[in-house]
Amino acid sequence: MIEHAGFVLWFTGLSGAGKTTLAKYIEQELRTRAIRLERLDGDMVRESLTKDLGFSKYDRDTNIERVAYVAKLLSRNNVVVLAAFISPYHKTRQYVREQVTNYIEVFVDAPLDVCAERDVKGMYAKAFAGEIENFTGVNDPYEAPDKPDIHVQTHLETVEESGGKVLTWLEERGLIPAQITL
Amino acid sequence: MIEHAGFVLWFTGLSGAGKTTLAKYIEQELRTRAIRLERLDGDMVRESLTKDLGFSKYDRDTNIERVAYVAKLLSRNNVVVLAAFISPYHKTRQYVREQVTNYIEVFVDAPLDVCAERDVKGMYAKAFAGEIENFTGVNDPYEAPDKPDIHVQTHLETVEESGGKVLTWLEERGLIPAQITL
Repeated sequence: MIEHAGFVLWFTGLSGAGKTTLAKYIEQELRTRAIRLERLDGDMVRESLTKDLGFSKYDRDTNIERVAYVAKLLSRNNVVVLAAFISPYHKTRQYVREQVTNYIEVFVDAPLDVCAERDVKGMYAKAFAGEIENFTGVNDPYEAPDKPDIHVQTHLETVEESGGKVLTWLEERGLIPAQITL
Repeated sequence: MIEHAGFVLWFTGLSGAGKTTLAKYIEQELRTRAIRLERLDGDMVRESLTKDLGFSKYDRDTNIERVAYVAKLLSRNNVVVLAAFISPYHKTRQYVREQVTNYIEVFVDAPLDVCAERDVKGMYAKAFAGEIENFTGVNDPYEAPDKPDIHVQTHLETVEESGGKVLTWLEERGLIPAQITL
């Protein structure tokens, strides 16, 4: 392991925009560079940390508050956190920014119709059929970031292209070592 | 900062036994040795991670489950965790042991009457008056550890003596560097 700063890559975007896919790609790349890291996403934490919570605004905010607490403790001890959460509200993302060390907002952007078309978990079909309440983008708001640190558009870019943007951004700021080319 | 293993010092014992006092003493000592660490206790996490929870058996177990999750993520990334929780049940402590990296159980032991006499937070008086339900040692059980890794008796030892036992234990196993005497 090498000495490095802690930071939090916060992937926000609609369900199906590609947050977890991108986070996993970055995870793989950072592991080859000997970075200490934890990847967190909604499905993971809802099995442990937040299994009591649903998807109302209050529950969504509480979910993110607990994740922010974990990310705070990790990032201030030089552990990198890759956090993939819809996190639809400006104010809640601002809260995370204030809690953690080196918050970096990654807007994982794709139009609603593209996400609904992908419908990886079959959730959009149910939401449009009125079977799910509080589904972000359908019957619950998504407040897109005004000024994300990094903006990727997964309907226009491959995961390697989006991932490359993130890695270059981190390298340029000295947050991760540049990949060594042999 | 130095390279070191992650481990979890889990301080269990009655309210008023001296868990937090001992954890704070150890924290101070480890910080002088450049150890990355987080100290967690009931009052701290109940303000953030577990503010929805009370003191029933279910709520106590859920409280510890969330703490265990945090301790797991920290300890496997080489961050030391000092966790001071009454944690009255064998089974729950066993759960923590299975979750985290290098679980070390510290039984912070003092007789009930000594703890009640100290009554730092005025809670025992209320519990004996029947004003508090589920108060460990009064109207809720405390299952003392059978085989703690470290056993301190705060009614017989100073905090320096108890703390010295813990530090020596860690040094002997190479989990922390020995204090350098100039």
